[in-house]
Amino acid sequence: MTEKMILDGSRVAGEMKETLKGRVEALAAAGTTPCLATILVGDDPASETYVRMKGNACRRLGIESRRIHLDRGTTTGQLTEAIRTLNDDPLVHGILLQHPVPRHIDERAAFEAIAIGKDVDGVTALGFAQNAFGFAAYPSCTPAAILAILDYYRIPIEGKHAVVVGRSPILGKPVSLMLLNRNATVTTCHSKTSDLPGLLRQADIVVAAVGRPRFIQGDWIREGAVVLDAGYNEGNVGDVDYDACLARASAITPVPAGVGPVTIAMLLKHTVDAAEKAAATAGR
Amino acid sequence: MTEKMILDGSRVAGEMKETLKGRVEALAAAGTTPCLATILVGDDPASETYVRMKGNACRRLGIESRRIHLDRGTTTGQLTEAIRTLNDDPLVHGILLQHPVPRHIDERAAFEAIAIGKDVDGVTALGFAQNAFGFAAYPSCTPAAILAILDYYRIPIEGKHAVVVGRSPILGKPVSLMLLNRNATVTTCHSKTSDLPGLLRQADIVVAAVGRPRFIQGDWIREGAVVLDAGYNEGNVGDVDYDACLARASAITPVPAGVGPVTIAMLLKHTVDAAEKAAATAGR
Repeated sequence: MTEKMILDGSRVAGEMKETLKGRVEALAAAGTTPCLATILVGDDPASETYVRMKGNACRRLGIESRRIHLDRGTTTGQLTEAIRTLNDDPLVHGILLQHPVPRHIDERAAFEAIAIGKDVDGVTALGFAQNAFGFAAYPSCTPAAILAILDYYRIPIEGKHAVVVGRSPILGKPVSLMLLNRNATVTTCHSKTSDLPGLLRQADIVVAAVGRPRFIQGDWIREGAVVLDAGYNEGNVGDVDYDACLARASAITPVPAGVGPVTIAMLLKHTVDAAEKAAATAGR
Repeated sequence: MTEKMILDGSRVAGEMKETLKGRVEALAAAGTTPCLATILVGDDPASETYVRMKGNACRRLGIESRRIHLDRGTTTGQLTEAIRTLNDDPLVHGILLQHPVPRHIDERAAFEAIAIGKDVDGVTALGFAQNAFGFAAYPSCTPAAILAILDYYRIPIEGKHAVVVGRSPILGKPVSLMLLNRNATVTTCHSKTSDLPGLLRQADIVVAAVGRPRFIQGDWIREGAVVLDAGYNEGNVGDVDYDACLARASAITPVPAGVGPVTIAMLLKHTVDAAEKAAATAGR
């Protein structure tokens, strides 16, 4: 029986926040309060919860959280207008549009309205490409969190075979490209993949980003693989059948307290990064 | 012995150009001559040849080819300035910066100077991301050529396992994302990949984009696989050991007369697309 490593995201996030505290204090002393604007459209309860969690995390660190809550009837034009107002506001350093937005809204158009310098969640096309080319200021938070966890626990990436399940523009695709930039060989799988278990059984590193509760089965995991679960489904359940996968993995993220807290810490870090840049530009 | 399909790029390109002819004539009748500006920096003989080939292909179709040749001492600032002049010129519809540029130039900065509406070679970060998200006006020409060949020969992509060897921003990465968007399962390999032969032997579709002559060996190819060779090395040699791979593949692109001519036809198509858009915007 090999020793198991539980990849404790709370611990990674805790250390990240500890570092951020000093930076926020230094900014405050120089007259800048980092500020993250969060935009919620409609009244999806899960989205409300996420936005509240992010706001609370900000406040605990001394980061201002400005919440914009638009009703579900908001049009794409009204939403992009609200985003542009935040782009122009020098007191706002980061903008997060909580997704999903109601179906009648063109989410891509809304994301694209976010100024690249305030795109702390890495959702714009330009931010995506900069990340794909390895020089993004703010890579998408969940992919960046996954890499941060691997690095924290000194899990080698170079030369490893990473299999990513999922191909969304803010998770599966960017994490595939980030692992590729770190010299992993990367296979990206999805709902049309023919032999998912067979491919997963070859993986040194598994990233689950499907949004289906307990989808990844224990016997799809190679003995000794590293499993990262970016899923977060109803009832605090990830995309991975945790107990079954734990039995075979050498290292695994739990849900909750795995990728989730690091994602939020990454969002805070990006907001502080943006505030520092703004303060430097303002010549303080 | 299975029947072999030689994927004849000259034929695909020929049909594409035939379609373009009528569109160029219609534009000419309405007073617009499509125009591709090509920029060559320095005096690399291979680059000079490529630029000349592209210019000749334009002229044969009635597309204007405007050649800008800058000496090898050109700075990044001078190059981006030249690009901006072309961006602002309403008679220019597409801009192609021949790469590689001399080492002292920041190639990424130069690419980024190209206006997205004239980025017919798909080299900007924004163009890359739009392609990754599946809505690019002008996907990178070589990846688009590879997809065009597969489609011309009605080779199914969905559910297939594609293995791409190479991860450059204008070839390996975009072709991986395009195949992914077409519902292939995609593995992207590179110089740090541990067991390249083993991975390639699982591939239904192999894309070679390494830039190493005859690098892909015959016994790395699964019986019946489809092999696309995007390499073009000195002496008219691709990245694939053609004869050895032909013996096992069900379909294969030759070099020359494989991906190359379709890449050029794609560049012409994008230029005509851009000219049509400009003409429509001008309200003709």
